Amino acid sequence: MKNPRMGKVMLVGAGPGDPDLLTLRALRAIEEADVVAHDRLVSPEIMALVPSHVRRIDVGKLPHHHTVPQEDINELLVSLALQGWNVTRLKGGDPMIFGRGSEESRALTEAGIGVSYVPGITAAQGAAASTGVPLTHRGLATGVRYVTGHRARDAELDLDWQSLASRETTLVVYMGVASIGEIAARLVSHGLGSETPVLMVASATTPREERRLSSLAAIGRDAAGHPVDAPALFIIGEVVSLYSAAQDAAERERLIELALANHG
Amino acid sequence: MKNPRMGKVMLVGAGPGDPDLLTLRALRAIEEADVVAHDRLVSPEIMALVPSHVRRIDVGKLPHHHTVPQEDINELLVSLALQGWNVTRLKGGDPMIFGRGSEESRALTEAGIGVSYVPGITAAQGAAASTGVPLTHRGLATGVRYVTGHRARDAELDLDWQSLASRETTLVVYMGVASIGEIAARLVSHGLGSETPVLMVASATTPREERRLSSLAAIGRDAAGHPVDAPALFIIGEVVSLYSAAQDAAERERLIELALANHG
Repeated sequence: MKNPRMGKVMLVGAGPGDPDLLTLRALRAIEEADVVAHDRLVSPEIMALVPSHVRRIDVGKLPHHHTVPQEDINELLVSLALQGWNVTRLKGGDPMIFGRGSEESRALTEAGIGVSYVPGITAAQGAAASTGVPLTHRGLATGVRYVTGHRARDAELDLDWQSLASRETTLVVYMGVASIGEIAARLVSHGLGSETPVLMVASATTPREERRLSSLAAIGRDAAGHPVDAPALFIIGEVVSLYSAAQDAAERERLIELALANHG
Repeated sequence: MKNPRMGKVMLVGAGPGDPDLLTLRALRAIEEADVVAHDRLVSPEIMALVPSHVRRIDVGKLPHHHTVPQEDINELLVSLALQGWNVTRLKGGDPMIFGRGSEESRALTEAGIGVSYVPGITAAQGAAASTGVPLTHRGLATGVRYVTGHRARDAELDLDWQSLASRETTLVVYMGVASIGEIAARLVSHGLGSETPVLMVASATTPREERRLSSLAAIGRDAAGHPVDAPALFIIGEVVSLYSAAQDAAERERLIELALANHG
């Protein structure tokens, strides 16, 4: 339907949700695309930035599908580019971290289609900035590690528990609402203290952000009841002990602002 | 020198170097600051975005200092804010990942100064996007981990080697040019294959970007001679095996563009 020259695909990180946390390049990729192909992890606030003349495709809801297999998304992207459209494939977070961007990229490359990447702020970074909890901190965590708690239906959680239960590393679990109780129990049985603090952050950086401060012992119970498909993550480790101080400071700041506003 | 009301400090991630990878909020924080306090990891391309009326302070080069202790940087920020200036503290990458942002934040908070954070694309994400090497990929890496290879002068590298030598996790080493040979040897002695691929990326996303494809067996030799203080990182793990395919595709794309340009 479009010109005969092949289109290109940009795999673009939309960040954690707040449109202000898009990179300058990501915003341009949204504004200059012929088609924006997005999934449910891209926030409504960001989708509102897509110009009205740009076609939108929600790849999580293709016709005739209950859940859309990755292969069908790959095929759709290939087919759009072959028709000559420039496609911005918009993904929550960063396309190179749990984004399966490299799988889509491989299918496109095999079809001879040009691919480029735009990184995005991943949810852990968004949660750190909004809560004031650092991912590394001298004396508390020498590094940080991201894993996913997602598993295929009824499958065992296949993680390297001995390696994960490392006291000096902040552990961030993505997509783990359904499995966090089991994950916490395994970390404790492999040597982490059951009082190790855990901060659950849902919909980080959006107006819907929610937080719950817990511990490895209690998080399974505390997370129960939270919608399983909500974009939530768990920050596990001693850095979480800095959360209360950060909150106290933010609250004090708020009270000062309020006092000044009433005074002025 | 300024108005008597206290200033605020924003701890802002400048990302890996390419100004297009700043977030929208980071750009605004640079444009609206009274003072930008930066260090040497912030690229010249990004410093060029600081408006001419905004005062710049290179905290890596304070007067009367050879290297500036963190405490002096903390004091400087506190003193600027107490004078009423709004300060954007600009850091390479993300202030919450190896940025010591939380140490500066603590000093500011203790002085009653308001602090907020703007996350930034960290160098590993910049390197992934520019090289096409994902940080996770189904079947190759179920997670990703960032550590620093920096150590105090003559100190032992104090890392949890058993935990680090995890085959299913992509390991990214920051600030490790001087220690990568030792790190690689320890990973091999704790069970990683000596042929595990390693991609060294220096000055990722800038015009000065350099890459070297190597292996755990060879990286100590291959990194020798590289300037020790250059911003470089090492991506270690099976995901690096995707590097050649990504490069072949990029090269083919470049040749097609060239052919079309000559043809047209």
